[in-house]
Amino acid sequence: MNPSKPMNPSNSPAATPPPPYYAVIFTSRRTEGDQGYAAMSDRMFELASRHDGFLGVDSARGADGLGITVSYWRDEAAILAWRQDAEHLQAQRGGRETWYAAYEVRIAKVERAYGHPGKGSTE
Amino acid sequence: MNPSKPMNPSNSPAATPPPPYYAVIFTSRRTEGDQGYAAMSDRMFELASRHDGFLGVDSARGADGLGITVSYWRDEAAILAWRQDAEHLQAQRGGRETWYAAYEVRIAKVERAYGHPGKGSTE
Repeated sequence: MNPSKPMNPSNSPAATPPPPYYAVIFTSRRTEGDQGYAAMSDRMFELASRHDGFLGVDSARGADGLGITVSYWRDEAAILAWRQDAEHLQAQRGGRETWYAAYEVRIAKVERAYGHPGKGSTE
Repeated sequence: MNPSKPMNPSNSPAATPPPPYYAVIFTSRRTEGDQGYAAMSDRMFELASRHDGFLGVDSARGADGLGITVSYWRDEAAILAWRQDAEHLQAQRGGRETWYAAYEVRIAKVERAYGHPGKGSTE
C-alpha cells in the first residue's frame, strides 16, 4: 500500500480496541517505478476501511525500499472476506505480477497491547 | 529502532521459520532531532539479535514520520527475556522520555504465513 497516504491522518499509531483481535503483517519490497501502484494503494486503503471488521491500519516504507503495512481486523472471518474481495483479488494479482519484487504476509492474533502515552496497558 | 540500518542486509522481508511463532509489532512516532536515537537503535538491533529465541526483524519509517518495527520471536518467554534485558530497559526508558512522541506495542502470535515469490505457503 502507499505509505505516503496513510488512512491515519494524525500520523500516529492506529487506535485499536483492547485485544484480542487480528493483525495482517505485510512486508514487501517494491519493483522499480510506480506503474499504477499509488492509485491502487489508495483504492485498497479506501476499500479495506469499508469492510466489516476492519479496525485500522499502519503503513511505512523506508528509504531503503522495505515497506511494512499492518492492518487490524476483528477476527479471521473479516480477514478472509477482505482477502476474497473481488477488487482486492485483482490488486493481489497485480502485486505478484507487477508491483512487488518480494513480499511476506503473516496473519497473527494480537494477544496483548500497550502504548505510550496515556492509553493504559493490558499487561 | 533505526530503519536506515536494518539487520536484514538484503533489504527483503525477514526470513522466519514456519508458524507458529510470535511477533512484536512496534509502531511509533518520533520526537524531533536524533538525540542519540540512531546509536541506541543500532545497539538494540545488535543486542536483540543475540538473544535466545530471536528470529528476525523488519523495520521501516516513512517520510511522514510513522515507524513500524516488527520483531519475530520463538515464544513469549523469549519476548519477556528481551523486554527485561537491562540495557533494553534503559532504552525503553529513553524511548518514553526522549525519542518517541507516541508508540504502541502489540504482542501477537503468528498463526499463518505465506510469501511471494517461491517460499511456498502454509495455507
